[in-house]
Amino acid sequence: VESGDGQRLEDVLDGLHPADIADFLEQIDESGREAFFSLWSGDAAGDVLSELDEGLREEVIGFLDPARLHAAVRDLDTDDVVDLVEDLEGVQKEAILGALEDVDRFAVEKALTYPEDTAGRLMQRHVVTAPEDWSVGQMIDFLRDNEDLPDQFYHVTLVDPRMAPVGNVTLGRMLSARRSALLRDLTEETFIPIEATETDENVAYAFNQYHLISTPVVDEGGRLVGVITIDDAMIVLSDEHEEDLLRLAGVGEGSMSDNVLDTVRVRLPWLAVNLGTAILASIVISQFADVLASVVALAVLMPIVASMGGNAGTQALTVAVRALATRDLTSSNMMRVVRREVLVGLVNGVAFAIVMGVIGWLWFGSAVIGAVLGVAMIVNLLVAGLAGILIPVVLERLKFDPALASGTFVTTVTDVIGFFAFLGLATYVLL
Amino acid sequence: VESGDGQRLEDVLDGLHPADIADFLEQIDESGREAFFSLWSGDAAGDVLSELDEGLREEVIGFLDPARLHAAVRDLDTDDVVDLVEDLEGVQKEAILGALEDVDRFAVEKALTYPEDTAGRLMQRHVVTAPEDWSVGQMIDFLRDNEDLPDQFYHVTLVDPRMAPVGNVTLGRMLSARRSALLRDLTEETFIPIEATETDENVAYAFNQYHLISTPVVDEGGRLVGVITIDDAMIVLSDEHEEDLLRLAGVGEGSMSDNVLDTVRVRLPWLAVNLGTAILASIVISQFADVLASVVALAVLMPIVASMGGNAGTQALTVAVRALATRDLTSSNMMRVVRREVLVGLVNGVAFAIVMGVIGWLWFGSAVIGAVLGVAMIVNLLVAGLAGILIPVVLERLKFDPALASGTFVTTVTDVIGFFAFLGLATYVLL
Repeated sequence: VESGDGQRLEDVLDGLHPADIADFLEQIDESGREAFFSLWSGDAAGDVLSELDEGLREEVIGFLDPARLHAAVRDLDTDDVVDLVEDLEGVQKEAILGALEDVDRFAVEKALTYPEDTAGRLMQRHVVTAPEDWSVGQMIDFLRDNEDLPDQFYHVTLVDPRMAPVGNVTLGRMLSARRSALLRDLTEETFIPIEATETDENVAYAFNQYHLISTPVVDEGGRLVGVITIDDAMIVLSDEHEEDLLRLAGVGEGSMSDNVLDTVRVRLPWLAVNLGTAILASIVISQFADVLASVVALAVLMPIVASMGGNAGTQALTVAVRALATRDLTSSNMMRVVRREVLVGLVNGVAFAIVMGVIGWLWFGSAVIGAVLGVAMIVNLLVAGLAGILIPVVLERLKFDPALASGTFVTTVTDVIGFFAFLGLATYVLL
Repeated sequence: VESGDGQRLEDVLDGLHPADIADFLEQIDESGREAFFSLWSGDAAGDVLSELDEGLREEVIGFLDPARLHAAVRDLDTDDVVDLVEDLEGVQKEAILGALEDVDRFAVEKALTYPEDTAGRLMQRHVVTAPEDWSVGQMIDFLRDNEDLPDQFYHVTLVDPRMAPVGNVTLGRMLSARRSALLRDLTEETFIPIEATETDENVAYAFNQYHLISTPVVDEGGRLVGVITIDDAMIVLSDEHEEDLLRLAGVGEGSMSDNVLDTVRVRLPWLAVNLGTAILASIVISQFADVLASVVALAVLMPIVASMGGNAGTQALTVAVRALATRDLTSSNMMRVVRREVLVGLVNGVAFAIVMGVIGWLWFGSAVIGAVLGVAMIVNLLVAGLAGILIPVVLERLKFDPALASGTFVTTVTDVIGFFAFLGLATYVLL
């Protein structure tokens, strides 16, 4: 497709959603993207831009000629422009802000005064509101006469004279009521205004927990400043999940369109941390050089103890990180969950101690080696359960992200304890 | 709160959302939950039930007396009843179906004929539709005269005489149009009907990708059979993420409210698989007993090679699993991504080979050990990058979940290759 035929490109792209065009651009390389924009003259450039992976936006904005960029940006809602502009700097940022009409530029600049990753950045400034005492008929007439409504809206937000939101009326409910019905008698039961400085993580939680569709955003004085809709909350939720998953694996961020050097830059620091902890485990092993030199079987079996501990710890850890994220793990059920993890570690430990004890015995013809292996397995799986739950909980208490690096901490603990228990016990029994 | 004071309980719970009551129930134990339901007489029991963790529903349904259960179930939308009933069996299932009015029971039974985890199970049967040629005025009058509208709806779906959906009109757009305007001139540009047999994973993807709010569901003949709304899609999305995260860690499923035995049952099989792969690695090590017996330094250093490989493999794997889930990794960019992972492995490998080569040399006073360690590190990080991307891709091609067990496969590969490269090279050079 990319070999020069502009007309055919138009035909193919005509039926595609901007999100699919953006996905396509993420999968080709830079020269392909440049060729694409010189061939394609579609009018959805703004939407494509806002669907595009953040890393690529800067590049693509560089390709676009100013007139096209202006037109593209003017088509977008202000929340999409904020999302576009917040990662840009200098000339590009100015170019986009300059393309906006005054009222939109003011809205975008205002949103940018809120800290990153807060409700203030997510919200759309354009809200459909009504005074508390309006009737359905008044509202419908108002909407019909209003030229400038948001693209998508699901509620009418009732406000008091101070512009504080007092209730949400769904359009469905309004449409099924008589013209004479008062809006305030139709408000939804669940009504949760959000402060503009609230983190977007909490916003996504509220949408998910209370099944919100859209909810008003207020400033510190309780006055309405915007509205957040569920599609934005869904994107935040999805990003949060991605962050947890990647952080657990020791990858800060990363996408398929990153190049080799960017990828190395993200992954190398975590591998360096892991190297430090692996060396720690090696130092533990080196303390037992004597017993290792005289009984080679220990060197053969010791990775099994470490590996089982690491795995059991990762299991407990992942469940704990997820439960902290969904707020299913709180101080009130903490003790019960810790007790459960310890018991699970004990039960699994005993089960695998028996299996491995027998295998160790048969393999090396020594019941003592089997017994040492079994006891070390119990100790390490117990510790794994405890570390798997306590490390993320402590990180959370200290206001760190519980997903961040807890995998490395947990496996360090299980490696060190595993080698120490196994080789220490072997030294005591065999030497 | 749980010590007997029913009146106080009512007062506290009165302001709470059913989702929060369900969370509270998930955090206390079984006797607490039973006491709760005997004290609490709130009328949101149905909503609480549908917010509750699946594992606990059966238990709670057992507590409720039949009259209360009937009332609770009748309050719910049919899609929530389907969600409630699909995990129940025998008597409980009959009790709930029996509580429904005929028309709702028919809808629920019809939904249950679709396979689990498909659009047919997710959808709400109750759809607001209009003939293609209606005007805005006709539609508003119809809605006003209709007593029995869904709790929440965001679109009017236009249907042709065969009941095939032909377009969606958002309520906002309808409200801002003249009464004389035709609905078909107001339809949304993005209109993506979904087949009832489509997997719910694909449904969530479509909502996320195309920013849908609600979308019609059709049967194999293209006729409208229901509607899916974004809140259901958001739950699916969230569940899919959870599944990926837990499966990557070798935990099939699991929640904070599971007891010890349930938890062991879920985790033990994965630990058993891991034991198998750990034994495989030990067998590799045992082939090099001679060199280990004569150079103890190798036993001390070998876990470092394995650990770095495992970590680098997990990084590549996690990014790949995530990209497969979001469909950012496809056959068209596969080769470029594989090439990138190999290069990243090489760059990281060389960097850590230099560091570890020097450390190995200084620690054990042998440049040869340092060199062997360095070369093994390069080999293993290369293999880690390759395994991290190819294993999930191959699992996906074979129609398995790429998250499932790929962590274990990848670390098996890096353990085996790591030990083999390090000890094999050491044997060749040192013996």
